[in-house]
Amino acid sequence: MDTYDLIMRNAEEVVTDEEVRELADDPAGKRAYVGYEPSGVLHIGHLLTANKLIDLQEAGLDVVVLLADVHAYLNGKGTFEEIRDTAERMKAQFIAYGLEEDKTEFVYGSSFQLEEDYTLDLHELELSTTMNRAQRAMAELQSGETAKVSHLVYPLMQVLDIEYLDLDLAVGGLDQRKVHMLAREELPELEYDARPCLHTPIVADLTSGEGKMSSSEGATISMEDSTEELEEKVNSAFCPPTRDPEGDLENPVLELFEYHVFPRFETVVVERPEEYGGPLSYEAYDSLADDLESGELHPADAKGTLASYLDELIEPGRRTLRELRAES
Amino acid sequence: MDTYDLIMRNAEEVVTDEEVRELADDPAGKRAYVGYEPSGVLHIGHLLTANKLIDLQEAGLDVVVLLADVHAYLNGKGTFEEIRDTAERMKAQFIAYGLEEDKTEFVYGSSFQLEEDYTLDLHELELSTTMNRAQRAMAELQSGETAKVSHLVYPLMQVLDIEYLDLDLAVGGLDQRKVHMLAREELPELEYDARPCLHTPIVADLTSGEGKMSSSEGATISMEDSTEELEEKVNSAFCPPTRDPEGDLENPVLELFEYHVFPRFETVVVERPEEYGGPLSYEAYDSLADDLESGELHPADAKGTLASYLDELIEPGRRTLRELRAES
Repeated sequence: MDTYDLIMRNAEEVVTDEEVRELADDPAGKRAYVGYEPSGVLHIGHLLTANKLIDLQEAGLDVVVLLADVHAYLNGKGTFEEIRDTAERMKAQFIAYGLEEDKTEFVYGSSFQLEEDYTLDLHELELSTTMNRAQRAMAELQSGETAKVSHLVYPLMQVLDIEYLDLDLAVGGLDQRKVHMLAREELPELEYDARPCLHTPIVADLTSGEGKMSSSEGATISMEDSTEELEEKVNSAFCPPTRDPEGDLENPVLELFEYHVFPRFETVVVERPEEYGGPLSYEAYDSLADDLESGELHPADAKGTLASYLDELIEPGRRTLRELRAES
Repeated sequence: MDTYDLIMRNAEEVVTDEEVRELADDPAGKRAYVGYEPSGVLHIGHLLTANKLIDLQEAGLDVVVLLADVHAYLNGKGTFEEIRDTAERMKAQFIAYGLEEDKTEFVYGSSFQLEEDYTLDLHELELSTTMNRAQRAMAELQSGETAKVSHLVYPLMQVLDIEYLDLDLAVGGLDQRKVHMLAREELPELEYDARPCLHTPIVADLTSGEGKMSSSEGATISMEDSTEELEEKVNSAFCPPTRDPEGDLENPVLELFEYHVFPRFETVVVERPEEYGGPLSYEAYDSLADDLESGELHPADAKGTLASYLDELIEPGRRTLRELRAES
């Protein structure tokens, strides 16, 4: 796969394609990032963007993981020391998951977000951004009664992070697009460059195929899951024999194959007894999806296979988590 | 005048009276402040609060003058160096006007407002304050289209200044009351103490007696005014022979006597030729106002007297300004 295709794989959108092509032409030394609020256990939301970071490393870019400890602190996630412990656990899991340690820079927000220059630039951004514009960049639109002033300031901090981390590409889930578009508008106000951005898709809820698989509600997949839990969750997943279920529904089993499994394995083998047709082997997502559509691959076999590949992906991180817990 | 009366003189309101009484009982080492955005020339708005600071010094309090250079910088008033020059000129005028140099601490905003602890506390305040609450504290209510994010953040910085300057009393014009009330609500959210506040009245527009005398529109009085300019402005001022003109109008000539002249002079003498009744002498504002009401004191004589006392008040600052300009 060429550099451009690797960068673009499974991206839901990039802004702009032209800028990403330029990056692909000369990826060496270019810096891409995702920001995470430190959390003890990686879940599917982290893994989706982590897969993209692994692609980008493979494409020759340097990867920056922002550990947003200042936000965690402000959100009441403990003292800075406690948050740092959590973040170090998270970091170990990212590496176990497959991020190359020597090509990944883990940066704490507190190492630059409280410095004088940053703070002054933040105040400049606050002055150049209308309340309405900042409100439109909030993750979820809230009214003035429930929204806090911080809901307007945080997006501006994310805008500045892109400059202060000296990035060439901002990566995030689709829910980050509003902030990244704000960054493209606002960074030039401070005479900084606008940067391209890349957004990963949203995986649908595992059991219903609706909306978004999240760590806060419904079934999700995390590094804490045992092999058995994983099997149980995947086996009860929504998986009609089609890529495109009715209405707004999605097929989360296929999505997990597409976004999580195929990018990380050259070949995906469906173990199947000879009496049911014997093993199937796929080198690309599309052939697996075609077989599910045609009936050649039964949803139950697809689920069993998915569970076992996810288990393999998660196992090193799960082990790391266990070791770290044993130490503490 | 006892300490409490001196603190309260010409105050439009204090919050709360009980807290101010406590301050008055033991004023030594207590710190009161006003914040100003550095400006080259003191005008009536500065002088009104400066009069109060002089009262407070006389009452035994220490006085802190915040030179808000960060805000001036963000408002495009020049580089930090240029703003510092402006602020130093302002400082010299305050001292020439009557602030006691060794009882006045001049503090630059940039000396603490960009530090890590302050910034982190500011983010905490942003998180504990709803957008609506912060909007209600803005100097002028603006809509989301015109209001900038900074309009919500600045009041929160003023709130924190009160803590970081270790103040016991926040002083400002009536236009600061909303911010000071916000401070009383929000400082305890960060486990800091709420502080009492004191607000000076608004002087009406000189020529119309309506609204507010401001430096930006209409006639105002500043340290730049020559004796002749001052005479001309005061002579064309609105001055009906009453304390309480019709409707919403005020008598700005009487207000200037009350808030500016009487606090600074023990006796006010109206020079008047023998043929018009000879000189009049007042030790209190009320007797002068009574005489204006009764017709004993003619508005033209009141104006002439006001101009000459204001001139005396302004002269040292005007000289300082001239000297500083000659140097640069």
